[in-house]
Amino acid sequence: MTRAELYQQILEKKSYLCVGLDTAPERLPESVKQEKDPIFAFNKAIIDATQDLCVAYKPNLAFYEAMGPQGWISLQKTLEYIPDTHFTIADAKRGDIGNTSRRYASAFFEQMNFDSVTVAPYMGVDSVRPFLEFEGKWVILLALTSNQGSQDFQMTTQENGQPLYEKVMRKAMSWANPEQLMFVVGATHPEKFKEIRAIAPDHFLLVPGIGAQGGDLAKVSEYGWNDHGGLLVNSSRGILYASSGADFARAARASAQNLQTQMADFIKRFPPA
Amino acid sequence: MTRAELYQQILEKKSYLCVGLDTAPERLPESVKQEKDPIFAFNKAIIDATQDLCVAYKPNLAFYEAMGPQGWISLQKTLEYIPDTHFTIADAKRGDIGNTSRRYASAFFEQMNFDSVTVAPYMGVDSVRPFLEFEGKWVILLALTSNQGSQDFQMTTQENGQPLYEKVMRKAMSWANPEQLMFVVGATHPEKFKEIRAIAPDHFLLVPGIGAQGGDLAKVSEYGWNDHGGLLVNSSRGILYASSGADFARAARASAQNLQTQMADFIKRFPPA
Repeated sequence: MTRAELYQQILEKKSYLCVGLDTAPERLPESVKQEKDPIFAFNKAIIDATQDLCVAYKPNLAFYEAMGPQGWISLQKTLEYIPDTHFTIADAKRGDIGNTSRRYASAFFEQMNFDSVTVAPYMGVDSVRPFLEFEGKWVILLALTSNQGSQDFQMTTQENGQPLYEKVMRKAMSWANPEQLMFVVGATHPEKFKEIRAIAPDHFLLVPGIGAQGGDLAKVSEYGWNDHGGLLVNSSRGILYASSGADFARAARASAQNLQTQMADFIKRFPPA
Repeated sequence: MTRAELYQQILEKKSYLCVGLDTAPERLPESVKQEKDPIFAFNKAIIDATQDLCVAYKPNLAFYEAMGPQGWISLQKTLEYIPDTHFTIADAKRGDIGNTSRRYASAFFEQMNFDSVTVAPYMGVDSVRPFLEFEGKWVILLALTSNQGSQDFQMTTQENGQPLYEKVMRKAMSWANPEQLMFVVGATHPEKFKEIRAIAPDHFLLVPGIGAQGGDLAKVSEYGWNDHGGLLVNSSRGILYASSGADFARAARASAQNLQTQMADFIKRFPPA
């Protein structure tokens, strides 16, 4: 999916919501546990209930890996079930030496058919570049993450006065353009969005951290929106586990709807050129 | 496996060799491709041929993931086949927010029974700590990696004058002791080993980058060895693909033997106290 196509989806759905599929076996409603593949059954119900309200789905790889080979099968079925109109993100945070990153890229872009994968920058250019060599695919690079530990290294000031996340962003922007590269910026740092948008005016930002982690959608939107939309705001637990009962899909829809309504109100203020 | 037990293995085998299982389907010898599970058949032959010469095995997760669910199954069979006397490393370079890192830890320490996992530090303390909460298991944290891209961020001088990898090491040493924490330090930076050993005198270092990547075993040993051994030196491609013919296992053994002989010569100079 191109950047223009993604923006088009955002305008059509009046939404920049990404639904995070952090599907945990112990949190499945009883009604789903009877199914042959409960993880897929749950994801399918969530996708059915939310697809008109969101533009992206983001399976979190850890949850599937923790279930062994069966988790991998449930993940593949989920990915195949997601409509082509939706941008898909393998939230995997991979990164390794070149010949190994190429394998990871192959896992997510060929073995499975994800549109994008989240990548960790610590190992530098040759750990990121193999993911960029796939035509039509995206790298979503960790910049400033939503968790407490983002203070430990990402915020550290470098010799040149920049925090590490800024150095990561500027360097990565010399490797790839906004048609291939997005950044992860946590909603828990609303005060940083303005300057991050100044560093990368054109790139999409994938924003985790609203909902369970406490980030603020209004502030993120205010500073993060650009002339291509430029935002994918993720909610995982707040949607998936809005209810633990048999009405989980309806509750997930209500939770997604609540976010989409706020997004639609916000988008109204910025009619496309 | 405890640090003392690992050191004991090193002394018994006169080896601190780790064999990296970066098993690529397109590089399998024809003789193995006929097997029902060619990846496992190859790994089994490599393990049979090298186990008396090495103390650790390190499957590289990317290679298994790129094969989908079947790769995961081959990996599990491989892990179960590795003798209990050997330290096992899931080379996965994971790291995510706390609740997600816990899932990855569960994938590698519970769903599978690895002794250790490689972890990327970029996301800070709460991305690493969940892996440390498993009794008897190890985190092997990326410090200074063997690839070209290690220059991009790891080498960057921080405001306090330290390179980032040093900050990562010092911070991580406040989270965990040498019984739980190792560091990845690439053999391609032999000039850094002396100062890295000064920063972390007691921790094991996992050293990739000899062989295909050009690192120097003698220099690494000279500066990296400590009173618990303190070194696991990895070779992957140089052992696995020493021959592409039906004699691959014999050739792998010869390649491992070559390294082990150098290691035995080196260890002789440092009789245990």
